[in-house]
Amino acid sequence: MKKPSLTILGCHSSIPKKNFHPTAQILEIKGFSFLIDCGEGTQVQLKKAKIKFNKIIHIFISHLHGDHFFGLIGLLSTFHLLGREKSINIYAPKGLKEIIDVHFKWSYTKLKYCVNYIELSSKKLEKIIDNEKIEVFSIPMKHRIYTNGFLFKEKPSKRKLNIEEIQKIPDIKILDYKNLKLGKDFKTNNGKIISNLKLTFDPPKILSYAFCSDTSFYLPIIEHIKYVDLLYHESTFLKIEEKRAINTGHSTANQAAYIAKEAKVKKLLLGHYSNRFPNLKEFEKEAKKIFPNVEISEPLKTYYLE
Amino acid sequence: MKKPSLTILGCHSSIPKKNFHPTAQILEIKGFSFLIDCGEGTQVQLKKAKIKFNKIIHIFISHLHGDHFFGLIGLLSTFHLLGREKSINIYAPKGLKEIIDVHFKWSYTKLKYCVNYIELSSKKLEKIIDNEKIEVFSIPMKHRIYTNGFLFKEKPSKRKLNIEEIQKIPDIKILDYKNLKLGKDFKTNNGKIISNLKLTFDPPKILSYAFCSDTSFYLPIIEHIKYVDLLYHESTFLKIEEKRAINTGHSTANQAAYIAKEAKVKKLLLGHYSNRFPNLKEFEKEAKKIFPNVEISEPLKTYYLE
Repeated sequence: MKKPSLTILGCHSSIPKKNFHPTAQILEIKGFSFLIDCGEGTQVQLKKAKIKFNKIIHIFISHLHGDHFFGLIGLLSTFHLLGREKSINIYAPKGLKEIIDVHFKWSYTKLKYCVNYIELSSKKLEKIIDNEKIEVFSIPMKHRIYTNGFLFKEKPSKRKLNIEEIQKIPDIKILDYKNLKLGKDFKTNNGKIISNLKLTFDPPKILSYAFCSDTSFYLPIIEHIKYVDLLYHESTFLKIEEKRAINTGHSTANQAAYIAKEAKVKKLLLGHYSNRFPNLKEFEKEAKKIFPNVEISEPLKTYYLE
Repeated sequence: MKKPSLTILGCHSSIPKKNFHPTAQILEIKGFSFLIDCGEGTQVQLKKAKIKFNKIIHIFISHLHGDHFFGLIGLLSTFHLLGREKSINIYAPKGLKEIIDVHFKWSYTKLKYCVNYIELSSKKLEKIIDNEKIEVFSIPMKHRIYTNGFLFKEKPSKRKLNIEEIQKIPDIKILDYKNLKLGKDFKTNNGKIISNLKLTFDPPKILSYAFCSDTSFYLPIIEHIKYVDLLYHESTFLKIEEKRAINTGHSTANQAAYIAKEAKVKKLLLGHYSNRFPNLKEFEKEAKKIFPNVEISEPLKTYYLE
């Protein structure tokens, strides 16, 4: 299994510049390719990042400001033109379905695949996906309109077989492997108990990722993202523009670092930069004073959860 | 006054690739910057082409297939975020207003500027702009949904003063210049008539541009675009895929050239290439056999009307 990773497709805020890519990212974890937000131009960024369109079956839209979803209609249209049959699940606030539907109404398009809209409206943490590999939660943010962050948590994997040790015990048959992977001890034909710990290795550590954008500086986030391995937290502004951050429902790099520190996350990734600040290193510098393991996100760069 | 020019922002059809730019172009003529179609990513292309957003006050949308207008909502949102006050006119088929409105409804945006929708529904050539500098017409195309091309025709300019000759005749005062520019002869104080031709130069030739995309091979277009200086005609396919062109409501390079030849246009520009054909020179080669003055359009390249 590939190491879980986050590929940034876009990490700029809403005013376009020459090399501008609004929010979109791909989280590849446990065999899934989760698309988180889908700003204008996402489909081309996906091509550049060599992400297979057919691998995407879950799309998460944080909120209905354009820099977070104006690329979605293009992507859904392209899926259709490419003959997609696999259905897709879109987790988004109320309104998105109406927006998408009206486009297809006027182009007289009858989609070849099914779109399931999972309308988010909770004001509390809510589990929105729960399967044997992963859990996904929506986390309410504080912004100018209803907005969610998302928390992705791996489920525990099964234990790994220690084949070398297993082969020393002829009583163990392939049929017993299932129980060994589940952590059960083994009883030989003559009644001897062999500890599971001798026959298996620990599974890989459970990894988790939290996406928090867009949001004001909002302390209730902290309890939901405690100890995550990677946190993407928006930092639209630097501290010097804190007042503007408050007025627009955004955060500063300083505040993002404070959230990361209090939540004791392993690593912080900054993004959603206002174009007032041409030197992105300033964001990292400001955050580092409070939380050392910080990096600025860059389009088409991949960050690993570990 | 700048020489009239067409800057291609995008000229690809709907399936995205790495360096993909769907249809959008800027016609700069008589002081106007007309935006024709607005595929996804147009706002960034406008930035790259150094087109001032505030110069755009007329936007023409040929039809409601995504590769011709999915960039419009992003552009209109950006106008708002930049504090635009100048109103904008959008010439488009029915449906566009509903699509744009539903976006702003769900982001709770009250635009700071006014958008006037001029809903196109004519099945015949229709004059949609008529001012002292220019006339613009919608031209019905033949496509899978209601689609228009557009014809832009300069109005005749005033005659240019021949200052050297004028200075030889002391009776001519500055107040007389207006009549001279309008082509009137001059009568001296002692009743002598001086021909206007001696006192002025011809104004620059009237130039015209026609945009025809998307469309099947459709002969009725010809009469509307006769003698234009520049014709952009879609060529989604090569002749080898003529059947596919018929089925999808598109044209081949060969057919575009035939239209250009029959309409006796000065120059033909091809575009809207399907990504089945990686070598765009093939389009030019095919068209050249029928109509020699042909070029393939390329993103961010400017073509002059002359």
